[in-house]
Amino acid sequence: MRGLKDRFLRACRKQPTDCTPVWFMRQAGRYLPEYRRLRERYSILELCKKPELAAEVTLIPLRRFQLDAAIIFADLMTPLEAMGVKFELKEGFGPIIETPIRSLSDVNKLHEPDGEEIAPETLQAIVFVKGELKGKPLIGFAGAPFTLASYLIEGKGTRDFAVTKQFMFSEPKGWHLLMEKLTNVVIKFLKSQVSAGADAIQIFDSWVGCLSPNDYREFVSPHMKRLFRETENLGVPRIHFGTGTATLLMLMKEAGGEVIGVDWRIPIDEAWQRLNFEVAIQGNLDPAVLLAHFEKVRERALDILKRIDGRNGHIFNLGHGILPQTDPDNVARLVDFIHSASRQISPKDV
Amino acid sequence: MRGLKDRFLRACRKQPTDCTPVWFMRQAGRYLPEYRRLRERYSILELCKKPELAAEVTLIPLRRFQLDAAIIFADLMTPLEAMGVKFELKEGFGPIIETPIRSLSDVNKLHEPDGEEIAPETLQAIVFVKGELKGKPLIGFAGAPFTLASYLIEGKGTRDFAVTKQFMFSEPKGWHLLMEKLTNVVIKFLKSQVSAGADAIQIFDSWVGCLSPNDYREFVSPHMKRLFRETENLGVPRIHFGTGTATLLMLMKEAGGEVIGVDWRIPIDEAWQRLNFEVAIQGNLDPAVLLAHFEKVRERALDILKRIDGRNGHIFNLGHGILPQTDPDNVARLVDFIHSASRQISPKDV
Repeated sequence: MRGLKDRFLRACRKQPTDCTPVWFMRQAGRYLPEYRRLRERYSILELCKKPELAAEVTLIPLRRFQLDAAIIFADLMTPLEAMGVKFELKEGFGPIIETPIRSLSDVNKLHEPDGEEIAPETLQAIVFVKGELKGKPLIGFAGAPFTLASYLIEGKGTRDFAVTKQFMFSEPKGWHLLMEKLTNVVIKFLKSQVSAGADAIQIFDSWVGCLSPNDYREFVSPHMKRLFRETENLGVPRIHFGTGTATLLMLMKEAGGEVIGVDWRIPIDEAWQRLNFEVAIQGNLDPAVLLAHFEKVRERALDILKRIDGRNGHIFNLGHGILPQTDPDNVARLVDFIHSASRQISPKDV
Repeated sequence: MRGLKDRFLRACRKQPTDCTPVWFMRQAGRYLPEYRRLRERYSILELCKKPELAAEVTLIPLRRFQLDAAIIFADLMTPLEAMGVKFELKEGFGPIIETPIRSLSDVNKLHEPDGEEIAPETLQAIVFVKGELKGKPLIGFAGAPFTLASYLIEGKGTRDFAVTKQFMFSEPKGWHLLMEKLTNVVIKFLKSQVSAGADAIQIFDSWVGCLSPNDYREFVSPHMKRLFRETENLGVPRIHFGTGTATLLMLMKEAGGEVIGVDWRIPIDEAWQRLNFEVAIQGNLDPAVLLAHFEKVRERALDILKRIDGRNGHIFNLGHGILPQTDPDNVARLVDFIHSASRQISPKDV
């Protein structure tokens, strides 16, 4: 197992650390002027597809802030190109799918690519980033099958996920085949990211919180269980993340992952308690708090650290991606605050 | 106290009923051809503003289905016109505000209307509907201050409520003044709805689930407590509803309401348990289930009734409004199923 001295990787394993590790979802994003400058010349997809650029974008926040991990710059949709899916990316709106998936026959048409066909640019970018990181861990990632399926079925942004659920309820055969095919792609993609050098992986089930526990159990669990079973022997910690998942946490833990990522809707100590402290936990500041003056940021960040109370196995993060209107100064101060304040709270082993 | 023989009103008071009462949020809506025909000739705002039409729309679903309550047809925004707010309504998109509220001085400019100035057409429509209902109860309603504030601040649809939260965190004085003014309007409006004949009221805090419990406590609770305190003596049951509120339920109950309305993200028995069974409960079928074939609808509706297990104080509803693409036939069958299946489950008093 790699990186046993690393703060982030140790926390993923619930081992003691000198202080709380911290990284942010979308830490390389529109809130950074360096990123916005690159975006004037390149589309998001171009940034994802040119390994040198993707590597550069990945590294920008690491130069600015004392972050404890990098996360490879990519989009949840890019691995699906190898399945024959055509889409556009509009920043802040999610993907627009050229031909949404709405029937069993649409699902049948999706290709089943080999590992090396899936987002090869991202794998190359991982190799480039690893050469620059000087031992700091790199997180690879993929969208979870449900979240990817919801993009493919809706075809564009949604608040109610009604088209996704209608397909799920009315065409269970098509639904499960779609989930199976997506799970295959995700597993292959995660494997090749680890081969390329990823030290940990995060599975983004960003929108799964729109489901009832009954629906999660019936339509999502079997596929997530397989995903985690078949990535177990990669030897890297797996972060299982979603938003609005207060009532799904036990089911998510059952599905798998060394770390569960939660959002701000649930107090982090309550979430960890529900998970019986059996896994590590990541989270959970509301990204909108970073839009306030730093006093408010400090107050809410300290509340999280107090709830964690020095217990081993906490990775500090936001509950979702950094908002584009965030002041980078607040981000810098937050990283430093988490490191210094968590040193003051005496470690508690469990 | 009115309506002690009525099934719906008795359930609101946790009294025994012959079977489970049922009504649906947006039961008078786009899924009904009669409504769509009216919409070809009138805008939503016109339907709200002509008391005869609003009354007619209110009654449409009652003619079709064996519903146990009517809910007056109106929009969450209409009472805010009396504050000087200008807006447009686009069906399915929520309101578009002409000049969003973004500063303390914007808040200062909002009028403080008298009771009779607030949506008088809705009060007139209530009088008309009551004349037609033959004793069936009529629900009046208002948006909760947080949900109304989020519309005023965002100015248009949002998924992250970032502008709302930024204002809340950065301008607490402006925020609390806005909430205070909105609370005043809501209280006055609810009072005049009851005077006009409403037998129960529902407070829609539809979007409050975007907040952490800490934020709810600091920025919402004080205003909701006053709202419920000052409507207590109206003598009608008050339904306190929100979506994504699994971790806010205790705080919502503390704020007030004889009934708490929950969505499908939390199993209804778990929600009721968290509320110590001290209030009645309303919910909680996912509206998307109604897009499936009736077998699935029956399965999920029965699951809810089994979780309730005959306990007094359950009102069957969806977890949010009926979706426009719903088949009215499924709605008719669901109403009948709830009535007949709940008669089979022996009543349990608590």
